[in-house]
Amino acid sequence: MALRNVNSDLDIERKTSSFSVERLTNILDGSAENTRIRRAVNAVLQNDPEFNLENQYFLTQNERYEDSVRRSIHLSKKMNEMGWTTNGPERTCCYRALSANLAFNVHIVFIKSILGLGTEEQIAKWIPLAEKYYIIGTYAQTELGHGTYLRGLETTATFDVATQEFVLNTPSISAMKWWPGDLGRTATHAVVFAQLYLKGKSYGMHPFVVHIRSLRDHSLAPGVTAGDIGPKMSFENIDNGFLLLENVRVPRENMLAKFSQVLPDGQYVKKGSEKINYLTMIVVRVSMVQNEVVLTLMKACTIAIRYSVVRRQSELKPGDPEAKILDYQTQQHKLLPQLAAAYAFYFVSKYLWDIFDRGYTEIKEGKFGLLPELHALASGIKVIATEYCSAGVEVCQKACGGHGYSLLSGLPSLCSRLMASCIYEGENTVLLLQTARFLIKCLGMSRSGHPLPSSVAYLSSKSFGKCHAQENRDFLNPDVYVEAYKHRAWRIVRNAATKLQTLVQSGIAQHEAWNRCSVQLAQGAMAHSHYIVVEKFVKALETFGKEVAIQRVLKHLCDLFALHGILSNMGDFVQDTYLSTQQTDMVTESYLDLLTVIRQDAVPLVDAFDFSDANLNSALGSYDGQVYQRLYEWAKKSPTNHQDNRVFETYLKPLFRNALSKL
Amino acid sequence: MALRNVNSDLDIERKTSSFSVERLTNILDGSAENTRIRRAVNAVLQNDPEFNLENQYFLTQNERYEDSVRRSIHLSKKMNEMGWTTNGPERTCCYRALSANLAFNVHIVFIKSILGLGTEEQIAKWIPLAEKYYIIGTYAQTELGHGTYLRGLETTATFDVATQEFVLNTPSISAMKWWPGDLGRTATHAVVFAQLYLKGKSYGMHPFVVHIRSLRDHSLAPGVTAGDIGPKMSFENIDNGFLLLENVRVPRENMLAKFSQVLPDGQYVKKGSEKINYLTMIVVRVSMVQNEVVLTLMKACTIAIRYSVVRRQSELKPGDPEAKILDYQTQQHKLLPQLAAAYAFYFVSKYLWDIFDRGYTEIKEGKFGLLPELHALASGIKVIATEYCSAGVEVCQKACGGHGYSLLSGLPSLCSRLMASCIYEGENTVLLLQTARFLIKCLGMSRSGHPLPSSVAYLSSKSFGKCHAQENRDFLNPDVYVEAYKHRAWRIVRNAATKLQTLVQSGIAQHEAWNRCSVQLAQGAMAHSHYIVVEKFVKALETFGKEVAIQRVLKHLCDLFALHGILSNMGDFVQDTYLSTQQTDMVTESYLDLLTVIRQDAVPLVDAFDFSDANLNSALGSYDGQVYQRLYEWAKKSPTNHQDNRVFETYLKPLFRNALSKL
Repeated sequence: MALRNVNSDLDIERKTSSFSVERLTNILDGSAENTRIRRAVNAVLQNDPEFNLENQYFLTQNERYEDSVRRSIHLSKKMNEMGWTTNGPERTCCYRALSANLAFNVHIVFIKSILGLGTEEQIAKWIPLAEKYYIIGTYAQTELGHGTYLRGLETTATFDVATQEFVLNTPSISAMKWWPGDLGRTATHAVVFAQLYLKGKSYGMHPFVVHIRSLRDHSLAPGVTAGDIGPKMSFENIDNGFLLLENVRVPRENMLAKFSQVLPDGQYVKKGSEKINYLTMIVVRVSMVQNEVVLTLMKACTIAIRYSVVRRQSELKPGDPEAKILDYQTQQHKLLPQLAAAYAFYFVSKYLWDIFDRGYTEIKEGKFGLLPELHALASGIKVIATEYCSAGVEVCQKACGGHGYSLLSGLPSLCSRLMASCIYEGENTVLLLQTARFLIKCLGMSRSGHPLPSSVAYLSSKSFGKCHAQENRDFLNPDVYVEAYKHRAWRIVRNAATKLQTLVQSGIAQHEAWNRCSVQLAQGAMAHSHYIVVEKFVKALETFGKEVAIQRVLKHLCDLFALHGILSNMGDFVQDTYLSTQQTDMVTESYLDLLTVIRQDAVPLVDAFDFSDANLNSALGSYDGQVYQRLYEWAKKSPTNHQDNRVFETYLKPLFRNALSKL
Repeated sequence: MALRNVNSDLDIERKTSSFSVERLTNILDGSAENTRIRRAVNAVLQNDPEFNLENQYFLTQNERYEDSVRRSIHLSKKMNEMGWTTNGPERTCCYRALSANLAFNVHIVFIKSILGLGTEEQIAKWIPLAEKYYIIGTYAQTELGHGTYLRGLETTATFDVATQEFVLNTPSISAMKWWPGDLGRTATHAVVFAQLYLKGKSYGMHPFVVHIRSLRDHSLAPGVTAGDIGPKMSFENIDNGFLLLENVRVPRENMLAKFSQVLPDGQYVKKGSEKINYLTMIVVRVSMVQNEVVLTLMKACTIAIRYSVVRRQSELKPGDPEAKILDYQTQQHKLLPQLAAAYAFYFVSKYLWDIFDRGYTEIKEGKFGLLPELHALASGIKVIATEYCSAGVEVCQKACGGHGYSLLSGLPSLCSRLMASCIYEGENTVLLLQTARFLIKCLGMSRSGHPLPSSVAYLSSKSFGKCHAQENRDFLNPDVYVEAYKHRAWRIVRNAATKLQTLVQSGIAQHEAWNRCSVQLAQGAMAHSHYIVVEKFVKALETFGKEVAIQRVLKHLCDLFALHGILSNMGDFVQDTYLSTQQTDMVTESYLDLLTVIRQDAVPLVDAFDFSDANLNSALGSYDGQVYQRLYEWAKKSPTNHQDNRVFETYLKPLFRNALSKL
């Protein structure tokens, strides 16, 4: 598509920016140098027709899969050609641009699991092959009837001393491995998790490298049944699969043996703590929030906000032309909190990386002290980020009216993809309750006089009093709202703990009491995570002290995020009259005023995310704002407009014939 | 699929029902006779292979469209064959069973618009042809750049006295008709809305029957450009289309002329009030809530609740087998409020039909008094029903974990289809603000001493005092919670009105003041509609006085719906301390207790919706609960498992070759 004039309604929005868009882009990228690299990578990808995604909305599941395999292999060549390494910044940029359109995602998990769970020899054997795609692996943990609860997994691996092999079996239909990506039609190998049996005794879950498809002709290995699990709400690029094992034998060396080993005589040897493995799970969640969840909301905001200054609807002022829909307060109320959330979760994910790095250093030295806090933080923030951002993308889609439902808007694919993030890498309710368990534990520690980790230090407070705000603008003071969030989390967690204690003291069994408090415990974990997000956004603001304009606009967003969160959960803040009726009115008015302020910078604030048109792949969201032209041009390309006339010939013509004499 | 044993985990749930499932089914159908008819129709459809929907999740957009055309034409034959009339109850049953898989939806709107807007002669000319599918029509109102705001539509129709024709034009790209169903690849005719011009003067929007495709060979008529708008988030069965008109001429008789007419000399003649037409819009919304929105949530609840007693996950009690996930409080908290909402919206849609019937009778007699109230009610309830139910379906999907994301669960198609309902037949924010306008008007009337229509009578209250509840079970008293909902709506509407007035008095223009209050006005309209839903559910309970068991279980659901609504919007109820801190704790405890009670009847309560397996088309939701077997059997049928080996041969084999010597 040739370069076009920018729609004047969009153009004018860019002329009044209160800050330097380029500078904010650099901040989001981490540095001007990072921006340069990202743009250079984008340019390379966009000039290569193999990476063109233009027609993807028209493809079938099978075409998407084929395309993704082709593209992944081409990307690997391209990276070689360009000298981009697998650990370099360019690779991250490639994935940022193409992630929903690549194959071999779980192959990467296969590689990581061997690196994390394998011995030196096992790493030396498998990794060079896997990195070059000479084999493709998958990670087969989840079963048809079993998810997050690992002890429930049914697949067995029984050691046969005679042949020095493990014999793997799927004992029932619910034990079938189900969902692993790259398994359906691609993988030659799988890291299979199975209950290890030695001389009739169970030793729990262990990982085994299993050969599942021939490298020569791709036929299934003996005893293996595998295939694709069929259509899903999103992820058409991935061949999620099933795997059924019947007496499948793998050599003894194929049990990944970094942490435990089976000797030739069938003796089981434990080899040190697996705790470090929790880090892998944590890092997956942290990077998923940053690279998938937040980016997706940023894209949706870019599309919806640009569209909202191009779309005009109804008279605002009688006699005037139809108004830009972003000038309606209701539209601002839909979109601007999502924009603020995108920034909020960006900053909290940066914070998570920082403490993860700190934790990683300590843990490598054998100090596991930070691990529980890190796990609770990463779980809680994974949950709030995925819930918030997936709801936010949905708001963005709905805010675009009918056109938002066209796949060509780009929004439905963002929306359905992100919805799944509430389930994968830990189902959100399960994770919240894990965070809650940590919070309850901390509360108990504080009661017995122990100091608490910094993120939960507020739990040891005795009381919070009432909110001190006296006028609207007091609610633009971060101290005021951070305190309110702290108080809210403190109150909910303490109430849940008290209820739990009361139930147990009344003679109800611990597990039953826990269950009866779990709705409130989950709410407590959510409130805690919400507090962390607000607090880390405020902390991030402090780093921009020398850049007044940037700091001011980010401060507006931070205020908006915090106040919107209070309004959306008002009951939590008012139930014990922490906020008075007058104060809640102040929050509302401050919030509504902020909408008007941020409205002025809305387009520059999404421009700062710096997505190229190819990144967005949206008829509504392109930089030039030529929304209607693009919708029309893209629609004309739809295969539904290039079908033969079979429906008419077969079904309609015989009927229409009867009208000919009458019209 | 052969009849199977019912999964024993599901079976046992049915043995302890506290009420007669069959009786509740009859109530929901309106009578035992209606149940009989519905089942008979279902049986006929299910025995006819042409109506088999089993493989629909595997089809492309084009295949879905072809299938739907074929099925619609076959249905028309079948109805003839069976003697089912277009106004009979069987037709409604057919649509209930097949609606997402039929074509010609907008053809029905085409017919209705001619019946509503045409003269006797026009009806006599077009309707017999349309009813037999000898022509297929569409209803072309919305334009690419214009939605709900009719005055903004750009298409023109200029009368040419010389030829006695209207000349229709699409003056710009944003004026293209966009979205109408059946337009993309099917329709031969369209009712096109265009600005009428007579001797250079505009007379506003008028409807014209335009011939757009040849009955003989389906080629586009001269001056017509039309096609399909491409892939959407749902509605693959429908060919939504675009239409561009260039000097398209239609004879003078083709302007639908019930309410206004153009004489041969170009003179414009008005022929009475079009007010009655508002009824059409209202009836569309009412029937959409009942036949589409509520049914969809009922299906989602059926699938998710049956699955939640089959799926087992983690230990609840240490040492026990994994627990049914519905035994977790968090899962009950997700699903049971949705179940309650399905019943709540069922009863409110029945209420809407009743008052609609009353209004219709009055309006036919020329009395338009009820119209504004009816319009406000239908709009508000359309909004709350679509928002609540679409969010509810999403909760159901997420509550099924990973398997909910498989299209084979049936949930993603329900979810994405219902999401669109928030936009079509009136964008929800636009509708809410229309209801708000009515509420503000009523408030003004009450202040000047006028009596108010019954649904808004509470707005004339001077004050509400505080909630009187003293213990948990007081919140199971409908008087208590209905009063709370009334108070909430009253407070928000009055506050918005006061703010509006203050702004106007401070010198701000009316339109600007309205805009600055619109977030709060929309909240007021929502609170009002919420009150209506709760109140009508309570009223409906009173009719079951003689059926103790049924009344009891419905009362539980009504209580749950009301208390869940209070908890989810707690701020609204607590902000002015209408509820005290102690009272909010009582609401929470009453609510949690109700979860346990309703949990016992959860499966019977969804069984009462009486969807057949074919209706649900879900691997997770079938009556027999053989979830895992069905997922596996259906997955094996996926076309992704029956593709050639092209990906391997082309892309993978050359790479895998390199590993052969090493493994």
